[in-house]
Amino acid sequence: MTMPGKTLGIIVGAGDLPIAIARAAKGEGRDVFLLGLEGVTDPKMIEPFPHAFTGLGEFGKAIKHLREAQCSEITFAGKVARVEFSKLKLDAKGALALPRILAAAIKGDDALLRALLAMFEREGLKVVGSAEVARDLLAPSGALGKLKPGADDEADIKYGLRVAQAMGALDIGQAAVVCRGLVLAVEAAEGTDAMLTRVASLPETLRGTPMQRKGVMVKTVKPHQERRVDLPVVAARTVELVAAAGLSGLAIQAGGVLVVDRQKMAEAADRLGVFVHGFRPESQS
Amino acid sequence: MTMPGKTLGIIVGAGDLPIAIARAAKGEGRDVFLLGLEGVTDPKMIEPFPHAFTGLGEFGKAIKHLREAQCSEITFAGKVARVEFSKLKLDAKGALALPRILAAAIKGDDALLRALLAMFEREGLKVVGSAEVARDLLAPSGALGKLKPGADDEADIKYGLRVAQAMGALDIGQAAVVCRGLVLAVEAAEGTDAMLTRVASLPETLRGTPMQRKGVMVKTVKPHQERRVDLPVVAARTVELVAAAGLSGLAIQAGGVLVVDRQKMAEAADRLGVFVHGFRPESQS
Repeated sequence: MTMPGKTLGIIVGAGDLPIAIARAAKGEGRDVFLLGLEGVTDPKMIEPFPHAFTGLGEFGKAIKHLREAQCSEITFAGKVARVEFSKLKLDAKGALALPRILAAAIKGDDALLRALLAMFEREGLKVVGSAEVARDLLAPSGALGKLKPGADDEADIKYGLRVAQAMGALDIGQAAVVCRGLVLAVEAAEGTDAMLTRVASLPETLRGTPMQRKGVMVKTVKPHQERRVDLPVVAARTVELVAAAGLSGLAIQAGGVLVVDRQKMAEAADRLGVFVHGFRPESQS
Repeated sequence: MTMPGKTLGIIVGAGDLPIAIARAAKGEGRDVFLLGLEGVTDPKMIEPFPHAFTGLGEFGKAIKHLREAQCSEITFAGKVARVEFSKLKLDAKGALALPRILAAAIKGDDALLRALLAMFEREGLKVVGSAEVARDLLAPSGALGKLKPGADDEADIKYGLRVAQAMGALDIGQAAVVCRGLVLAVEAAEGTDAMLTRVASLPETLRGTPMQRKGVMVKTVKPHQERRVDLPVVAARTVELVAAAGLSGLAIQAGGVLVVDRQKMAEAADRLGVFVHGFRPESQS
Protein backbone atom coordinates (compact mmCIF):
# COMPACT_ATOMS: atom_id res chain seq x y z
CA MET A 1 0.00 0.00 0.00
CA THR A 2 2.88 2.42 -0.63
CA MET A 3 2.10 5.61 -2.52
CA PRO A 4 4.70 6.27 -5.22
CA GLY A 5 5.44 9.93 -5.64
CA LYS A 6 4.92 10.62 -1.95
CA THR A 7 8.04 11.07 0.13
CA LEU A 8 9.11 8.32 2.53
CA GLY A 9 10.39 9.65 5.86
CA ILE A 10 13.13 7.54 7.42
CA ILE A 11 13.86 8.00 11.14
CA VAL A 12 17.54 7.15 11.22
CA GLY A 13 19.09 5.18 14.09
CA ALA A 14 22.66 3.88 14.17
CA GLY A 15 24.14 1.37 11.70
CA ASP A 16 24.06 0.80 7.93
CA LEU A 17 20.44 -0.31 7.62
CA PRO A 18 18.79 3.15 7.25
CA ILE A 19 21.01 4.00 4.29
CA ALA A 20 20.37 0.62 2.65
CA ILE A 21 16.65 1.30 3.01
CA ALA A 22 16.99 4.82 1.63
CA ARG A 23 18.86 3.48 -1.40
CA ALA A 24 16.39 0.64 -1.95
CA ALA A 25 13.40 3.00 -1.75
CA LYS A 26 15.06 5.44 -4.15
CA GLY A 27 15.77 2.48 -6.43
CA GLU A 28 12.03 1.82 -6.51
CA GLY A 29 11.45 5.41 -7.57
CA ARG A 30 10.45 6.96 -4.25
CA ASP A 31 11.58 10.26 -2.81
CA VAL A 32 13.11 9.90 0.63
CA PHE A 33 13.69 12.27 3.52
CA LEU A 34 16.02 11.23 6.34
CA LEU A 35 15.45 12.46 9.88
CA GLY A 36 18.63 12.13 11.94
CA LEU A 37 18.60 11.88 15.73
CA GLU A 38 21.10 14.03 17.61
CA GLY A 39 23.69 11.92 19.40
CA VAL A 40 22.56 8.79 17.55
CA THR A 41 22.80 9.31 13.79
CA ASP A 42 26.17 9.76 12.08
CA PRO A 43 25.74 13.08 10.16
CA LYS A 44 28.04 11.91 7.34
CA MET A 45 25.80 8.98 6.54
CA ILE A 46 22.68 11.02 5.85
CA GLU A 47 24.34 14.01 4.15
CA PRO A 48 23.93 12.58 0.60
CA PHE A 49 20.12 12.62 1.07
CA PRO A 50 17.57 15.34 1.82
CA HIS A 51 17.64 15.38 5.62
CA ALA A 52 17.25 17.21 8.93
CA PHE A 53 18.11 16.58 12.58
CA THR A 54 16.07 16.58 15.79
CA GLY A 55 16.74 15.67 19.41
CA LEU A 56 15.19 12.53 20.85
CA GLY A 57 12.73 14.57 22.96
CA GLU A 58 11.80 17.03 20.19
CA PHE A 59 8.72 15.31 18.91
CA GLY A 60 7.16 18.57 17.68
CA LYS A 61 10.25 19.43 15.65
CA ALA A 62 10.31 15.93 14.17
CA ILE A 63 6.69 16.18 13.02
CA LYS A 64 7.33 19.65 11.58
CA HIS A 65 10.32 18.44 9.54
CA LEU A 66 8.46 15.38 8.26
CA ARG A 67 5.46 17.49 7.20
CA GLU A 68 7.59 20.11 5.48
CA ALA A 69 9.26 17.32 3.53
CA GLN A 70 5.79 16.10 2.47
CA CYS A 71 6.16 12.69 4.12
CA SER A 72 2.97 10.65 4.23
CA GLU A 73 4.68 7.45 5.32
CA ILE A 74 7.56 6.99 7.69
CA THR A 75 9.74 4.07 8.68
CA PHE A 76 12.09 3.51 11.61
CA ALA A 77 15.50 2.02 10.84
CA GLY A 78 18.68 1.43 12.82
CA LYS A 79 19.36 1.09 16.50
CA VAL A 80 18.65 3.56 19.28
CA ALA A 81 20.19 2.60 22.63
CA ARG A 82 17.82 2.73 25.59
CA VAL A 83 16.98 6.38 26.19
CA GLU A 84 17.60 8.10 29.53
CA PHE A 85 14.29 9.89 29.87
CA SER A 86 15.52 12.09 32.71
CA LYS A 87 18.12 13.67 30.38
CA LEU A 88 15.86 14.33 27.38
CA LYS A 89 15.60 17.88 26.02
CA LEU A 90 11.85 18.16 25.41
CA ASP A 91 9.93 20.51 23.14
CA ALA A 92 6.23 21.25 23.80
CA LYS A 93 4.86 18.23 21.90
CA GLY A 94 7.58 16.05 23.42
CA ALA A 95 6.62 17.15 26.94
CA LEU A 96 2.95 16.40 26.22
CA ALA A 97 3.78 12.93 24.91
CA LEU A 98 6.21 12.00 27.66
CA PRO A 99 3.82 10.69 30.35
CA ARG A 100 2.25 8.24 27.90
CA ILE A 101 5.68 7.13 26.69
CA LEU A 102 6.98 6.66 30.22
CA ALA A 103 3.92 4.62 31.17
CA ALA A 104 4.53 2.38 28.15
CA ALA A 105 8.28 2.14 28.82
CA ILE A 106 7.61 0.63 32.24
CA LYS A 107 5.73 -2.22 30.55
CA GLY A 108 8.73 -3.16 28.42
CA ASP A 109 10.44 -2.44 25.14
CA ASP A 110 7.66 -3.77 22.96
CA ALA A 111 5.04 -1.60 24.66
CA LEU A 112 7.36 1.42 24.38
CA LEU A 113 7.74 0.82 20.67
CA ARG A 114 4.00 0.49 20.11
CA ALA A 115 3.40 3.75 22.00
CA LEU A 116 5.99 5.53 19.84
CA LEU A 117 4.41 4.29 16.63
CA ALA A 118 0.97 5.34 17.85
CA MET A 119 2.30 8.86 18.60
CA PHE A 120 3.37 9.32 15.00
CA GLU A 121 0.20 7.79 13.63
CA ARG A 122 -1.97 10.19 15.68
CA GLU A 123 -0.17 12.95 13.77
CA GLY A 124 -1.41 11.47 10.50
CA LEU A 125 1.82 9.74 9.51
CA LYS A 126 1.53 6.11 8.47
CA VAL A 127 4.29 3.93 9.93
CA VAL A 128 5.46 1.23 7.53
CA GLY A 129 8.03 -1.54 7.98
CA SER A 130 11.47 -1.67 6.41
CA ALA A 131 10.40 -4.80 4.58
CA GLU A 132 7.43 -3.02 2.99
CA VAL A 133 9.48 -0.15 1.57
CA ALA A 134 12.53 -2.21 0.61
CA ARG A 135 11.34 -5.71 -0.09
CA ASP A 136 14.64 -6.61 -1.76
CA LEU A 137 16.39 -6.38 1.61
CA LEU A 138 14.61 -9.46 2.99
CA ALA A 139 16.76 -12.61 3.13
CA PRO A 140 15.88 -15.09 0.35
CA SER A 141 15.59 -18.86 0.82
CA GLY A 142 18.64 -21.03 0.18
CA ALA A 143 22.31 -20.22 -0.31
CA LEU A 144 23.41 -16.60 -0.69
CA GLY A 145 26.94 -17.55 -1.78
CA LYS A 146 28.40 -20.75 -3.21
CA LEU A 147 28.65 -22.90 -0.08
CA LYS A 148 25.85 -24.87 1.55
CA PRO A 149 25.43 -26.28 5.08
CA GLY A 150 26.51 -29.93 5.58
CA ALA A 151 24.64 -32.53 7.64
CA ASP A 152 26.34 -31.49 10.93
CA ASP A 153 25.53 -27.88 10.18
CA GLU A 154 21.89 -28.73 9.47
CA ALA A 155 21.60 -30.32 12.91
CA ASP A 156 23.19 -27.24 14.50
CA ILE A 157 20.84 -24.96 12.55
CA LYS A 158 17.84 -26.90 13.81
CA TYR A 159 18.98 -26.69 17.44
CA GLY A 160 20.09 -23.07 17.06
CA LEU A 161 16.66 -22.17 15.72
CA ARG A 162 15.00 -23.76 18.77
CA VAL A 163 17.31 -21.78 21.05
CA ALA A 164 16.89 -18.50 19.16
CA GLN A 165 13.11 -18.87 19.14
CA ALA A 166 13.04 -19.56 22.89
CA MET A 167 15.18 -16.44 23.39
CA GLY A 168 12.88 -14.45 21.15
CA ALA A 169 9.76 -15.58 23.01
CA LEU A 170 11.33 -14.22 26.23
CA ASP A 171 12.25 -10.96 24.41
CA ILE A 172 15.97 -11.56 25.03
CA GLY A 173 17.57 -11.64 21.60
CA GLN A 174 17.35 -13.19 18.17
CA ALA A 175 20.60 -15.03 17.61
CA ALA A 176 22.50 -18.02 18.96
CA VAL A 177 25.69 -19.90 18.11
CA VAL A 178 25.64 -23.70 18.22
CA CYS A 179 28.62 -25.96 17.54
CA ARG A 180 28.02 -29.71 17.28
CA GLY A 181 25.11 -29.56 19.68
CA LEU A 182 26.74 -27.24 22.24
CA VAL A 183 25.34 -23.72 22.61
CA LEU A 184 28.42 -21.51 22.48
CA ALA A 185 26.67 -18.16 22.83
CA VAL A 186 23.29 -16.51 23.06
CA GLU A 187 22.62 -12.91 22.13
CA ALA A 188 21.12 -10.45 24.60
CA ALA A 189 21.70 -6.69 24.90
CA GLU A 190 25.28 -6.86 23.59
CA GLY A 191 24.11 -7.54 20.02
CA THR A 192 25.13 -10.03 17.35
CA ASP A 193 28.57 -8.62 16.57
CA ALA A 194 29.74 -8.73 20.19
CA MET A 195 28.32 -12.25 20.56
CA LEU A 196 30.32 -13.47 17.55
CA THR A 197 33.48 -11.74 18.77
CA ARG A 198 33.32 -13.62 22.07
CA VAL A 199 32.85 -16.97 20.31
CA ALA A 200 36.23 -16.34 18.69
CA SER A 201 37.77 -16.11 22.16
CA LEU A 202 36.33 -19.37 23.52
CA PRO A 203 38.76 -22.32 23.96
CA GLU A 204 39.45 -24.04 20.63
CA THR A 205 38.34 -27.40 22.07
CA LEU A 206 34.78 -26.02 22.11
CA ARG A 207 34.61 -24.47 18.67
CA GLY A 208 35.85 -24.59 15.09
CA THR A 209 38.73 -22.66 13.58
CA PRO A 210 39.26 -21.07 10.16
CA MET A 211 41.31 -24.21 9.31
CA GLN A 212 38.61 -26.63 10.46
CA ARG A 213 35.28 -24.87 10.53
CA LYS A 214 32.33 -26.10 12.58
CA GLY A 215 29.22 -24.65 14.16
CA VAL A 216 26.68 -22.10 12.97
CA MET A 217 25.17 -18.79 13.91
CA VAL A 218 21.38 -18.74 13.62
CA LYS A 219 19.47 -15.48 13.44
CA THR A 220 15.71 -15.41 13.44
CA VAL A 221 12.68 -13.21 14.08
CA LYS A 222 10.91 -13.03 17.44
CA PRO A 223 7.55 -14.85 17.37
CA HIS A 224 5.65 -11.64 18.18
CA GLN A 225 7.98 -9.15 16.57
CA GLU A 226 6.54 -5.72 15.74
CA ARG A 227 7.41 -5.98 12.07
CA ARG A 228 7.06 -2.26 11.43
CA VAL A 229 10.33 -1.73 13.24
CA ASP A 230 13.16 -3.75 14.66
CA LEU A 231 13.63 -6.56 12.12
CA PRO A 232 16.96 -8.30 12.67
CA VAL A 233 19.76 -7.31 10.30
CA VAL A 234 22.87 -8.98 8.87
CA ALA A 235 25.60 -7.58 6.63
CA ALA A 236 29.00 -8.44 5.16
CA ARG A 237 30.49 -7.54 8.55
CA THR A 238 28.40 -10.34 10.11
CA VAL A 239 29.91 -12.84 7.66
CA GLU A 240 33.41 -11.66 8.57
CA LEU A 241 32.75 -12.17 12.27
CA VAL A 242 31.20 -15.60 11.63
CA ALA A 243 34.33 -16.56 9.73
CA ALA A 244 36.66 -15.20 12.42
CA ALA A 245 34.77 -17.25 15.04
CA GLY A 246 35.67 -20.46 13.17
CA LEU A 247 32.04 -21.21 12.31
CA SER A 248 30.94 -23.04 9.16
CA GLY A 249 28.33 -20.45 8.37
CA LEU A 250 25.36 -18.34 9.11
CA ALA A 251 21.68 -19.29 8.88
CA ILE A 252 19.06 -16.55 8.65
CA GLN A 253 15.31 -16.70 8.55
CA ALA A 254 14.21 -16.17 4.95
CA GLY A 255 11.65 -13.37 4.66
CA GLY A 256 12.30 -12.29 8.25
CA VAL A 257 15.89 -11.03 8.45
CA LEU A 258 17.13 -7.98 6.54
CA VAL A 259 20.29 -8.25 4.46
CA VAL A 260 22.01 -4.89 4.10
CA ASP A 261 24.05 -5.58 0.95
CA ARG A 262 23.35 -9.00 -0.52
CA GLN A 263 26.07 -8.85 -3.16
CA LYS A 264 28.79 -7.79 -0.73
CA MET A 265 27.65 -10.41 1.75
CA ALA A 266 27.77 -13.24 -0.81
CA GLU A 267 31.24 -12.12 -1.90
CA ALA A 268 32.49 -12.10 1.69
CA ALA A 269 31.04 -15.59 2.26
CA ASP A 270 32.74 -17.04 -0.82
CA ARG A 271 36.04 -15.32 -0.10
CA LEU A 272 36.12 -16.55 3.51
CA GLY A 273 34.74 -20.06 2.89
CA VAL A 274 31.55 -19.91 4.95
CA PHE A 275 27.93 -20.42 3.96
CA VAL A 276 24.99 -18.02 4.27
CA HIS A 277 21.80 -20.04 4.32
CA GLY A 278 18.25 -18.63 4.27
CA PHE A 279 15.89 -21.08 5.99
CA ARG A 280 12.13 -21.31 6.40
CA PRO A 281 11.39 -22.13 10.07
CA GLU A 282 8.57 -24.54 9.18
CA SER A 283 10.97 -26.73 7.21
CA GLN A 284 13.45 -26.86 10.11
CA SER A 285 11.29 -27.99 13.02
CA MET B 1 24.96 -41.95 53.72
CA THR B 2 28.62 -40.93 53.95
CA MET B 3 30.95 -43.31 55.76
CA PRO B 4 33.16 -41.41 58.20
CA GLY B 5 36.63 -42.83 58.41
CA LYS B 6 36.59 -43.86 54.75
CA THR B 7 38.53 -41.68 52.36
CA LEU B 8 36.69 -39.38 49.97
CA GLY B 9 38.25 -39.26 46.50
CA ILE B 10 37.93 -35.91 44.75
CA ILE B 11 38.45 -35.79 40.97
CA VAL B 12 39.82 -32.29 40.58
CA GLY B 13 38.88 -30.06 37.65
CA ALA B 14 39.79 -26.39 37.27
CA GLY B 15 38.77 -23.61 39.67
CA ASP B 16 38.53 -23.13 43.44
CA LEU B 17 35.61 -25.45 44.13
CA PRO B 18 37.55 -28.75 44.53
CA ILE B 19 39.74 -27.25 47.25
CA ALA B 20 36.73 -25.77 49.05
CA ILE B 21 35.15 -29.23 49.02
CA ALA B 22 38.34 -30.87 50.24
CA ARG B 23 38.53 -28.40 53.14
CA ALA B 24 34.85 -28.77 54.00
CA ALA B 25 35.08 -32.59 54.00
CA LYS B 26 38.20 -32.47 56.16
CA GLY B 27 36.36 -30.07 58.46
CA GLU B 28 33.71 -32.74 58.90
CA GLY B 29 36.42 -35.20 59.93
CA ARG B 30 36.85 -37.10 56.65
CA ASP B 31 40.07 -38.13 55.01
CA VAL B 32 40.38 -36.88 51.45
CA PHE B 33 42.43 -37.91 48.43
CA LEU B 34 42.68 -35.58 45.44
CA LEU B 35 43.10 -36.96 41.94
CA GLY B 36 44.46 -34.28 39.61
CA LEU B 37 43.94 -34.37 35.85
CA GLU B 38 46.97 -33.65 33.69
CA GLY B 39 46.57 -30.43 31.73
CA VAL B 40 43.50 -29.47 33.77
CA THR B 41 44.36 -29.34 37.46
CA ASP B 42 46.76 -26.73 38.84
CA PRO B 43 49.39 -28.86 40.69
CA LYS B 44 49.97 -26.16 43.34
CA MET B 45 46.34 -26.29 44.43
CA ILE B 46 46.31 -29.96 45.33
CA GLU B 47 49.84 -30.20 46.79
CA PRO B 48 48.72 -29.52 50.38
CA PHE B 49 46.56 -32.68 50.27
CA PRO B 50 47.28 -36.39 49.68
CA HIS B 51 47.06 -36.58 45.89
CA ALA B 52 48.07 -38.12 42.57
CA PHE B 53 47.77 -37.26 38.87
CA THR B 54 46.35 -39.12 35.87
CA GLY B 55 45.72 -38.26 32.24
CA LEU B 56 42.15 -37.80 31.03
CA GLY B 57 42.28 -41.11 29.11
CA GLU B 58 43.98 -43.11 31.86
CA PHE B 59 40.93 -44.59 33.48
CA GLY B 60 42.83 -47.65 34.75
CA LYS B 61 45.43 -45.51 36.46
CA ALA B 62 42.70 -43.37 38.04
CA ILE B 63 40.95 -46.42 39.51
CA LYS B 64 44.27 -47.79 40.79
CA HIS B 65 45.12 -44.53 42.58
CA LEU B 66 41.66 -44.24 44.12
CA ARG B 67 41.76 -47.84 45.38
CA GLU B 68 45.26 -47.47 46.84
CA ALA B 69 44.07 -44.40 48.69
CA GLN B 70 41.19 -46.51 50.10
CA CYS B 71 38.49 -44.37 48.53
CA SER B 72 34.99 -45.82 48.77
CA GLU B 73 33.26 -42.68 47.63
CA ILE B 74 34.31 -40.18 45.01
CA THR B 75 33.07 -36.79 43.92
CA PHE B 76 33.72 -34.70 40.80
CA ALA B 77 34.47 -31.00 41.30
CA GLY B 78 35.64 -28.18 39.07
CA LYS B 79 35.45 -27.65 35.34
CA VAL B 80 36.86 -29.77 32.55
CA ALA B 81 36.69 -28.13 29.11
CA ARG B 82 35.22 -30.31 26.39
CA VAL B 83 37.69 -33.11 25.73
CA GLU B 84 39.21 -33.77 22.31
CA PHE B 85 38.78 -37.53 22.22
CA SER B 86 41.07 -37.93 19.22
CA LYS B 87 44.00 -36.56 21.25
CA LEU B 88 43.52 -38.65 24.41
CA LYS B 89 46.37 -40.81 25.68
CA LEU B 90 44.54 -44.01 26.63
CA ASP B 91 45.56 -46.79 29.02
CA ALA B 92 44.02 -50.29 28.67
CA LYS B 93 40.92 -49.60 30.77
CA GLY B 94 40.55 -46.21 29.09
CA ALA B 95 40.64 -47.84 25.64
CA LEU B 96 37.99 -50.37 26.71
CA ALA B 97 35.72 -47.63 28.04
CA LEU B 98 36.12 -45.26 25.12
CA PRO B 99 33.47 -46.62 22.70
CA ARG B 100 30.76 -46.38 25.34
CA ILE B 101 31.89 -42.86 26.28
CA LEU B 102 31.97 -41.74 22.65
CA ALA B 103 28.49 -43.13 22.04
CA ALA B 104 27.23 -41.18 25.06
CA ALA B 105 29.11 -38.01 24.06
CA ILE B 106 27.22 -37.90 20.77
CA LYS B 107 23.94 -37.72 22.71
CA GLY B 108 25.04 -34.59 24.57
CA ASP B 109 26.86 -33.40 27.65
CA ASP B 110 24.37 -34.79 30.13
CA ALA B 111 24.53 -38.29 28.62
CA LEU B 112 28.35 -38.10 28.59
CA LEU B 113 28.34 -37.21 32.26
CA ARG B 114 26.02 -40.06 33.18
CA ALA B 115 28.21 -42.54 31.25
CA LEU B 116 31.30 -41.29 33.11
CA LEU B 117 29.62 -41.70 36.49
CA ALA B 118 28.44 -45.20 35.56
CA MET B 119 32.03 -46.15 34.58
CA PHE B 120 33.31 -45.35 38.05
CA GLU B 121 30.35 -47.00 39.75
CA ARG B 122 30.94 -50.25 37.83
CA GLU B 123 34.38 -50.26 39.49
CA GLY B 124 32.71 -50.24 42.91
CA LEU B 125 33.18 -46.54 43.65
CA LYS B 126 30.13 -44.67 44.82
CA VAL B 127 29.78 -41.25 43.18
CA VAL B 128 28.40 -38.61 45.53
CA GLY B 129 27.54 -34.96 44.93
CA SER B 130 29.50 -31.97 46.19
CA ALA B 131 26.48 -30.96 48.22
CA GLU B 132 26.40 -34.32 50.01
CA VAL B 133 30.01 -34.20 51.15
CA ALA B 134 30.13 -30.49 51.88
CA ARG B 135 26.63 -29.43 52.81
CA ASP B 136 27.89 -26.12 54.20
CA LEU B 137 28.80 -25.02 50.68
CA LEU B 138 25.15 -24.81 49.56
CA ALA B 139 23.79 -21.27 49.36
CA PRO B 140 21.48 -20.43 52.29
CA SER B 141 18.17 -18.54 52.00
CA GLY B 142 18.19 -14.77 52.45
CA ALA B 143 20.98 -12.21 52.59
CA LEU B 144 24.59 -13.35 52.75
CA GLY B 145 25.91 -9.87 53.54
CA LYS B 146 24.21 -6.78 54.98
CA LEU B 147 22.33 -5.50 51.92
CA LYS B 148 18.98 -6.76 50.62
CA PRO B 149 17.31 -6.47 47.21
CA GLY B 150 14.89 -3.54 46.77
CA ALA B 151 11.52 -3.68 44.98
CA ASP B 152 13.06 -3.05 41.52
CA ASP B 153 15.64 -5.73 42.19
CA GLU B 154 12.94 -8.20 43.25
CA ALA B 155 11.19 -7.70 39.90
CA ASP B 156 14.49 -8.23 38.06
CA ILE B 157 15.20 -11.37 40.12
CA LYS B 158 11.79 -12.77 39.19
CA TYR B 159 12.32 -12.15 35.47
CA GLY B 160 15.94 -13.28 35.62
CA LEU B 161 14.86 -16.54 37.21
CA ARG B 162 12.37 -17.15 34.37
CA VAL B 163 15.10 -16.49 31.84
CA ALA B 164 17.73 -18.62 33.62
CA GLN B 165 15.28 -21.51 33.98
CA ALA B 166 14.38 -21.35 30.28
CA MET B 167 18.12 -21.40 29.46
CA GLY B 168 18.63 -24.32 31.81
CA ALA B 169 15.79 -26.31 30.27
CA LEU B 170 17.52 -25.94 26.89
CA ASP B 171 20.87 -26.95 28.49
CA ILE B 172 22.41 -23.59 27.56
CA GLY B 173 23.53 -22.07 30.84
CA GLN B 174 22.43 -21.20 34.34
CA ALA B 175 22.81 -17.47 34.70
CA ALA B 176 21.31 -14.27 33.32
CA VAL B 177 21.65 -10.54 33.96
CA VAL B 178 18.48 -8.42 34.01
CA CYS B 179 18.36 -4.65 34.51
CA ARG B 180 14.96 -2.99 34.99
CA GLY B 181 13.25 -5.57 32.85
CA LEU B 182 15.87 -5.69 30.07
CA VAL B 183 17.94 -8.86 29.67
CA LEU B 184 21.51 -7.58 29.44
CA ALA B 185 23.24 -10.94 29.11
CA VAL B 186 22.66 -14.66 29.09
CA GLU B 187 25.31 -17.23 29.93
CA ALA B 188 26.27 -19.98 27.47
CA ALA B 189 29.66 -21.65 26.97
CA GLU B 190 31.65 -18.55 27.99
CA GLY B 191 30.72 -18.97 31.67
CA THR B 192 29.47 -16.59 34.34
CA ASP B 193 32.64 -14.52 34.77
CA ALA B 194 32.91 -13.67 31.06
CA MET B 195 29.20 -12.85 30.97
CA LEU B 196 29.57 -10.38 33.83
CA THR B 197 32.66 -8.83 32.26
CA ARG B 198 30.76 -8.05 29.07
CA VAL B 199 27.90 -6.43 31.01
CA ALA B 200 30.46 -3.94 32.30
CA SER B 201 31.23 -2.97 28.70
CA LEU B 202 27.63 -2.36 27.62
CA PRO B 203 26.56 1.28 27.11
CA GLU B 204 25.80 2.99 30.45
CA THR B 205 22.31 3.93 29.25
CA LEU B 206 21.43 0.21 29.45
CA ARG B 207 22.89 -0.63 32.82
CA GLY B 208 23.79 0.63 36.27
CA THR B 209 27.12 1.96 37.44
CA PRO B 210 29.01 1.67 40.73
CA MET B 211 27.65 5.18 41.53
CA GLN B 212 24.06 4.27 40.73
CA ARG B 213 23.62 0.54 40.86
CA LYS B 214 20.76 -1.28 39.14
CA GLY B 215 20.05 -4.73 37.78
CA VAL B 216 20.80 -8.21 39.08
CA MET B 217 22.60 -11.39 38.12
CA VAL B 218 20.53 -14.51 38.75
CA LYS B 219 22.14 -17.94 38.97
CA THR B 220 20.08 -21.06 39.27
CA VAL B 221 20.11 -24.82 38.84
CA LYS B 222 19.00 -26.53 35.62
CA PRO B 223 15.61 -28.26 36.05
CA HIS B 224 17.10 -31.70 35.31
CA GLN B 225 20.58 -31.12 36.63
CA GLU B 226 22.65 -34.21 37.48
CA ARG B 227 23.22 -33.14 41.07
CA ARG B 228 26.13 -35.52 41.61
CA VAL B 229 28.27 -33.23 39.49
CA ASP B 230 28.07 -29.86 37.86
CA LEU B 231 26.24 -27.74 40.46
CA PRO B 232 26.67 -24.03 39.67
CA VAL B 233 29.25 -22.18 41.75
CA VAL B 234 29.75 -18.61 42.95
CA ALA B 235 32.61 -17.06 44.91
CA ALA B 236 33.96 -13.71 46.10
CA ARG B 237 35.26 -13.16 42.55
CA THR B 238 31.66 -13.37 41.28
CA VAL B 239 30.67 -10.58 43.69
CA GLU B 240 33.54 -8.42 42.44
CA LEU B 241 32.45 -8.86 38.83
CA VAL B 242 28.80 -8.14 39.74
CA ALA B 243 29.95 -4.93 41.41
CA ALA B 244 32.15 -3.93 38.47
CA ALA B 245 29.19 -4.44 36.12
CA GLY B 246 27.22 -1.78 38.03
CA LEU B 247 24.62 -4.28 39.22
CA SER B 248 22.76 -4.00 42.54
CA GLY B 249 23.49 -7.57 43.44
CA LEU B 250 23.48 -11.26 42.87
CA ALA B 251 20.62 -13.72 43.46
CA ILE B 252 21.40 -17.42 43.80
CA GLN B 253 19.18 -20.41 44.24
CA ALA B 254 19.29 -21.42 47.91
CA GLY B 255 20.15 -25.10 48.31
CA GLY B 256 21.13 -25.37 44.65
CA VAL B 257 24.16 -23.15 44.07
CA LEU B 258 27.53 -23.77 45.75
CA VAL B 259 29.25 -20.91 47.56
CA VAL B 260 33.01 -21.40 47.63
CA ASP B 261 33.85 -19.17 50.62
CA ARG B 262 30.77 -17.73 52.29
CA GLN B 263 32.65 -15.45 54.66
CA LYS B 264 34.86 -13.95 51.96
CA MET B 265 31.86 -13.52 49.69
CA ALA B 266 29.82 -11.68 52.34
CA GLU B 267 32.79 -9.42 53.08
CA ALA B 268 33.22 -8.60 49.39
CA ALA B 269 29.50 -7.82 49.08
CA ASP B 270 29.52 -5.45 52.06
CA ARG B 271 32.74 -3.77 50.99
CA LEU B 272 31.48 -3.17 47.43
CA GLY B 273 27.89 -2.28 48.32
CA VAL B 274 26.03 -5.08 46.55
CA PHE B 275 23.63 -7.70 47.87
CA VAL B 276 23.91 -11.48 47.71
CA HIS B 277 20.46 -12.97 48.03
CA GLY B 278 19.61 -16.68 48.32
CA PHE B 279 16.14 -17.31 46.91
CA ARG B 280 13.78 -20.29 46.86
CA PRO B 281 12.37 -20.61 43.31
CA GLU B 282 8.88 -21.51 44.54
CA SER B 283 8.61 -18.18 46.39
CA GLN B 284 9.65 -16.22 43.28
CA SER B 285 7.23 -17.48 40.66
